[in-house]
Amino acid sequence: MNNPTIHPVILCGGSGTRLWPRSRAIKPKPFLPLVGQGTLFEATLARCAPEAGFAAPLVVTGTAHLDHVEAQWPAGIGGETIVEPCARNTAAAIALAALRLPEDAVMLVCPSDHHIADAAAFQAAAHAAAALAAEGWLVSFGIEAKAPETGFGYLQQGEPIGDLGFRVARFVEKPDLERARQFLAEGGYAWNGGIFAFRVGTFLAELAAHRPAIAAAARAAAAGGRSEGRRFQPDAEAFAAIESESVDYAVMENTSRAAMVPADMGWSDIGNWDALWAARPRDDHGNSVTGPAELVQCRNVLVDSDGPRVSVIGLEDVVIVVDGDEVLVTTRAGAQLVGKLNGAANQ
Amino acid sequence: MNNPTIHPVILCGGSGTRLWPRSRAIKPKPFLPLVGQGTLFEATLARCAPEAGFAAPLVVTGTAHLDHVEAQWPAGIGGETIVEPCARNTAAAIALAALRLPEDAVMLVCPSDHHIADAAAFQAAAHAAAALAAEGWLVSFGIEAKAPETGFGYLQQGEPIGDLGFRVARFVEKPDLERARQFLAEGGYAWNGGIFAFRVGTFLAELAAHRPAIAAAARAAAAGGRSEGRRFQPDAEAFAAIESESVDYAVMENTSRAAMVPADMGWSDIGNWDALWAARPRDDHGNSVTGPAELVQCRNVLVDSDGPRVSVIGLEDVVIVVDGDEVLVTTRAGAQLVGKLNGAANQ
Repeated sequence: MNNPTIHPVILCGGSGTRLWPRSRAIKPKPFLPLVGQGTLFEATLARCAPEAGFAAPLVVTGTAHLDHVEAQWPAGIGGETIVEPCARNTAAAIALAALRLPEDAVMLVCPSDHHIADAAAFQAAAHAAAALAAEGWLVSFGIEAKAPETGFGYLQQGEPIGDLGFRVARFVEKPDLERARQFLAEGGYAWNGGIFAFRVGTFLAELAAHRPAIAAAARAAAAGGRSEGRRFQPDAEAFAAIESESVDYAVMENTSRAAMVPADMGWSDIGNWDALWAARPRDDHGNSVTGPAELVQCRNVLVDSDGPRVSVIGLEDVVIVVDGDEVLVTTRAGAQLVGKLNGAANQ
Repeated sequence: MNNPTIHPVILCGGSGTRLWPRSRAIKPKPFLPLVGQGTLFEATLARCAPEAGFAAPLVVTGTAHLDHVEAQWPAGIGGETIVEPCARNTAAAIALAALRLPEDAVMLVCPSDHHIADAAAFQAAAHAAAALAAEGWLVSFGIEAKAPETGFGYLQQGEPIGDLGFRVARFVEKPDLERARQFLAEGGYAWNGGIFAFRVGTFLAELAAHRPAIAAAARAAAAGGRSEGRRFQPDAEAFAAIESESVDYAVMENTSRAAMVPADMGWSDIGNWDALWAARPRDDHGNSVTGPAELVQCRNVLVDSDGPRVSVIGLEDVVIVVDGDEVLVTTRAGAQLVGKLNGAANQ
């Protein structure tokens, strides 16, 4: 097995509303200590440690979040921040990162707002994916599907590639509940978690083949950019001209070299407060408390307060969040509607 | 029908915990705008208006609440505040008030922390009770029992007294649910709401007959007291020596002249947050909102916030209260446990 150094490419984009009001436009999810002591961004950096075979990270982020990125970047870790002048989705972000690396390097694209309980399993999957990538495969992590989730895309597993992974037989967009249940019952389907390993040259060639305009515009943005300390700023005009498209649509669903490695690593995208409840430690009654609280006759209740004491009586399957001037109380099932609340939508 | 002037005796005691955290030891229930625009104390004063045949009020309160009483006493209304140096329950409070009035006056004892939706019905019942009191009866308001409440004492209706009211056949302490249901099914039972009409001389004579020590100590406290502006301060040492007992135990359950007048007046003691939900205006979904809030897919939810916006999804039969550094979230059924929360108990 080929064991190349892995260049982490950490994506810090977006301004999620689904964990509002704790997550706000000015301080989104990656930069919050949602599970455990550190923030999700810090945990993402920590998983890609040098001793586990990772090179210094490339972090792609917008100007709005640059302060958070730099404040949470541990001292002594090298790397570069690519500062996007505007948001252009993942194909552009990954292309820019690729253009900052040597042709034969292997990059591992990691969202910065996921929780991964088992870092060792992540690292093992990363090395399997990197080995396949070094051989010219475009590799997705296939996250073991634990439930019929309708919020994720699915990968259907194809023929094995040695003992490292599989071809992707098919990409499936977010299914309805019935199809999601079928996938789970049938087996051979995994969640597409947005973690990818690519050899730089392969990725850029595939991007040029399937999205030549994006590839050319990204190349212009990189060529016209400038470095200042750890920051790399692509040319703003050229970057703004890149079409906004996800790497899934632009490359993965078009390439004939799509592969996947299975990953069972306690993964959660913490896509809403219910998912956060599931990712956090809970007591014997299923309650999870952060901040001052008193719970009486409660089960499966999440309390998260930034100060005020929260006293709760008789509730089940409910999430209560206090953040400054906002209080959220929702059923766990209703957590998926949080992003549509006035408070979340009009931040 | 005898139609004497009625002297309201308004009791502002206690430091309830059942509407915590809105109600706090330093600002208890009577002084909060819980239903409608004014506070319960203000509404109590307003119901006893001169044009409805009421004299200026006597208010009995402790030093802790004196500021609230005086701040909420409308300009242009006379009357007196009897300032209790310590809490000695209702027999003592009513005795002190009686001793500040002429022997032949009729007093109407009113708690200050009840909600009465129908002021005209209250006034009609007050005049019926006053007429009976003028004839020497000790009269309780018999509040029409609307539900098998276990939190109230009950009055069993006896023989009619003219067309004004009835003798009390029996006082029943707080029953269990089964008995409360029996009372409701049987009929002839009313809630004892703690509203009483007495002729002053009759009350003092009955108190002296059944509790001579309380009567004598109250007389000493009144005789040793002093007036300062609108305040009357009983002698502290003599007052402290009075045995602490309710007027129900000390007088009503012992006298042979107990009477009742039926009162159907939209009464609530607002004994907990569930009762407050019931007393407040509600929308078509049964939701009642005070303060900034957004409710999505909610039914029978009470929100009461002193500032922060409260966003609620998918809840039913739940009460949410935000007050400064405290947030309460309880099922309506759990509202009866609020007083036992650490926050409420350790104010």
